[in-house]
Amino acid sequence: MTPTRTPADGCLHNVEVPQPSLENNTADAERLAEALEKVLDGGPVHLGHAVVRRLPSMLRAADHRLRCAVIRYGGHWQVCGIRPADDAAPMTGLAVDLGTTRVVLRLVDLAGGETLAETAFDNPQIEIGPDILTRIHHAEKPGGLEQLQECVITGIGNALEALLTDSGRSPQDVFLTAVAGNTAMTHLFLGLEPRWIIREPYIPAVNRPELLTPRDVGIPMNDMGRIFVFPNIGSYFGGDLIAGILFSGMDTREQPAILVDVGTNAEVVLGNRDWLMACAGAAGPALESGVAGIGMMAAPGVIERVTIHPPDRRFELRTIGGLPPVGICGSGVIDLAAHLFISGMIDIRGRFVPEKCGDRLVKDENGIAQLVLVPAEKSGTGRDLTIGQPDLDSLMRSKAAMYTILETITDSVGLSMEELDKFFVAGTFGSLIDPVSAIRIGMLPDLPLERYEAIGNSSLGGATQILTDCSATGRVEAIRQRITYMELNVNQDFMNRFSAAKFLPHTHPERFPSVKVWG
Amino acid sequence: MTPTRTPADGCLHNVEVPQPSLENNTADAERLAEALEKVLDGGPVHLGHAVVRRLPSMLRAADHRLRCAVIRYGGHWQVCGIRPADDAAPMTGLAVDLGTTRVVLRLVDLAGGETLAETAFDNPQIEIGPDILTRIHHAEKPGGLEQLQECVITGIGNALEALLTDSGRSPQDVFLTAVAGNTAMTHLFLGLEPRWIIREPYIPAVNRPELLTPRDVGIPMNDMGRIFVFPNIGSYFGGDLIAGILFSGMDTREQPAILVDVGTNAEVVLGNRDWLMACAGAAGPALESGVAGIGMMAAPGVIERVTIHPPDRRFELRTIGGLPPVGICGSGVIDLAAHLFISGMIDIRGRFVPEKCGDRLVKDENGIAQLVLVPAEKSGTGRDLTIGQPDLDSLMRSKAAMYTILETITDSVGLSMEELDKFFVAGTFGSLIDPVSAIRIGMLPDLPLERYEAIGNSSLGGATQILTDCSATGRVEAIRQRITYMELNVNQDFMNRFSAAKFLPHTHPERFPSVKVWG
Repeated sequence: MTPTRTPADGCLHNVEVPQPSLENNTADAERLAEALEKVLDGGPVHLGHAVVRRLPSMLRAADHRLRCAVIRYGGHWQVCGIRPADDAAPMTGLAVDLGTTRVVLRLVDLAGGETLAETAFDNPQIEIGPDILTRIHHAEKPGGLEQLQECVITGIGNALEALLTDSGRSPQDVFLTAVAGNTAMTHLFLGLEPRWIIREPYIPAVNRPELLTPRDVGIPMNDMGRIFVFPNIGSYFGGDLIAGILFSGMDTREQPAILVDVGTNAEVVLGNRDWLMACAGAAGPALESGVAGIGMMAAPGVIERVTIHPPDRRFELRTIGGLPPVGICGSGVIDLAAHLFISGMIDIRGRFVPEKCGDRLVKDENGIAQLVLVPAEKSGTGRDLTIGQPDLDSLMRSKAAMYTILETITDSVGLSMEELDKFFVAGTFGSLIDPVSAIRIGMLPDLPLERYEAIGNSSLGGATQILTDCSATGRVEAIRQRITYMELNVNQDFMNRFSAAKFLPHTHPERFPSVKVWG
Repeated sequence: MTPTRTPADGCLHNVEVPQPSLENNTADAERLAEALEKVLDGGPVHLGHAVVRRLPSMLRAADHRLRCAVIRYGGHWQVCGIRPADDAAPMTGLAVDLGTTRVVLRLVDLAGGETLAETAFDNPQIEIGPDILTRIHHAEKPGGLEQLQECVITGIGNALEALLTDSGRSPQDVFLTAVAGNTAMTHLFLGLEPRWIIREPYIPAVNRPELLTPRDVGIPMNDMGRIFVFPNIGSYFGGDLIAGILFSGMDTREQPAILVDVGTNAEVVLGNRDWLMACAGAAGPALESGVAGIGMMAAPGVIERVTIHPPDRRFELRTIGGLPPVGICGSGVIDLAAHLFISGMIDIRGRFVPEKCGDRLVKDENGIAQLVLVPAEKSGTGRDLTIGQPDLDSLMRSKAAMYTILETITDSVGLSMEELDKFFVAGTFGSLIDPVSAIRIGMLPDLPLERYEAIGNSSLGGATQILTDCSATGRVEAIRQRITYMELNVNQDFMNRFSAAKFLPHTHPERFPSVKVWG
């Protein structure tokens, strides 16, 4: 963990508001604002109507000593909650990773920054449309947008209330919510028309949403509170990625680092505290889950680790939860390919080598070569688990695309990959892949392993940081303004690189000195 | 009318938002904000969630040409409504004079600034409490504040909807509301605890309310809209007076001017474009309506003008609406006293002179001298309309207090009254009084008559100006910051002045060279 990812300067501030007198008889709101302005750096303090409504009696009941939750936004400080300073009830915040598929909530104590509870649920919009495109088309029907917004807001509200009930708290204890999602998901959360995001020239309704009140969207929290929604840079670079950059801390480092988030697209950010360059490209579904046949998202029984042991090419498989294997996830496929390659069972083009594969290599009813990973009698499905030549071909394209994207973006700023001081890999995928295997197949560059860091759910991590670090919103805005988005032009240069990367580990094996095949 | 009271730079701006392209693919909200920032001077443009929600489809339906209502507030511009530029439907604003007794609404076309409709109604809070003190005490009971807020908001809502229906418009056509009231009324309108306003050291909940959304208070208007509430300076200097200063334009004049607003209190502001000094004092009820017995607020049948003709001291009375007289209002009493004085019927101490009053002077059942203004057979009540010596004594105290306040405030800044370049008299009272009479009794200084200007409902006028002049909110803030509030200490100096002013026109008649008595 880099230091910037630990709570820095919290969102809570205790202030003693000067007692009024005939000499200092300015109003309560202005006295509180002035007291806070002395504690906080620069910029006026805005209280909001709901705070002012509660202020006079709370101020006097609390003997003029208040605990205030604040968030910095757009050159001012917004108060998003007040409590008597000696009130023992915790003031909490909610971080939301608003995924297309999965929504994750984390309840955080605004005082110390620690996580109080966490929960996740399938995005209820899936029932309306499994993917973003379907949902955007649905939003164009009468009432469709309202329906999509309502179902995700209701989902978040229900999950939040369950979280709160479980921990003996109420919505009145939640003062700040931070939401990170991609551009389309953010639009649906906000009830903004997503129609133009997917049509040339791909225009969002908004890049930088204003701070919202709970009533603006309908989240059950204290009505003094505020909702911070991560900005996006355009239709393709969402708030989830900005949250990821924030969480990685790469925007504060002197040395260049790279952040890779692999989903349906591979999203890549390169930079340091002075500049940031981003791009995204279709790396193919193979890296996440989409290997034909037995490919699956990470789940119990799914193969996540593959080792092939010399000298007899014995397969060792590790499944999630240690259950009988039912499929294989992206990290498992990468492991598998890496071991198939170093054991000589596939060649540098990713083709099965029959004499090395032996009995494991069979042909299916269509005459396609399949490697049996798990015979039917040992699998959790009662059928052979196999991986076919087309699956490997797909992986070869995906890993080549990934490497090409990395090479293109580093090259565009005049860096070599060796100069990357840190390589952050985000997401479940990042937590699961073994960098050694990813390097062996030439998907990731051959850097010293200590430079690789899996940072997990960086979107949720970035949202959490908004709740625990007063400087985070300023960094978000700086990141947004500093990012140069590079369109990946699939030109001759790109295609040449891609072709060169379609070998194991690469046409130029000297770039991967650590990769050694058997014997 | 001074030039500053005519609509200057309206709140509506037509903008052509650049069409998006692959080269300029920033979001709709940011393209609109940028286009507005080019039209408007300085400061960022904030759109608000309700505007962003409507923006994408409206922008495209309107071929990227929009009409936007904006208001400048606290260093930024707030958009409070958008319409397609060629939409013929008017965008309107609502000015509210939030009086303790009477609430006046004016519907204004934001395009040209002209008044579309006006209405007034008794403040429904009167049923809960006739005066501010009673209402504040009621607000301290459980549910009392909510009840007071709800009844005035409902009253405004109903009156607004009637206004709109009458003119074929809907709440959706109202984008900006400006509300001017005294500190207590403003608190009740906003649902803010007024409890501490009336208790030493007299602290309002807020001096400068933030811009509100319609939902914050419940006014039926377009949800993109905003509500501007005039700030107050403390418990005793309310937004209604700041609105009055704005409307008078005295804050933009090079030469010093004075503004007097007479109600239960006399409120006085003195200053120019560089400085403003304010004070308030109890001038006594006599000036408004409170002459015992026949004193009334201006209404049909009420005597508003009195002339006594030489040589036979014939009384000529003018009533509102020309109806048989039923009472006399403050301006009528001032006229009466002035004419009684110059005709010799009262002496310089305001005492009836029996030999000049003749038959008109009678004694009531308590032995108190009464002057018969209208005998029973000519009155609208079937009884004699009389004014007694105690009524005149009360008027003498009120007029002396008024003059003393004027003398004290001008003296405090080293000016003489003759240096007052302009003398604005606000309110119904200001519209009704005859400056000649007010000078004759020594209530107002003996300035050339052209310096006096009755500006009517200056509170409503100031609220209207917010709707029609983009620079008005900045002036309001400048006024608020510039005003020095002078506590009127009833010290020996004040008492000496007061005693000297308790003569007609004054102990020093040389200060009133224009005042000549008969013969």
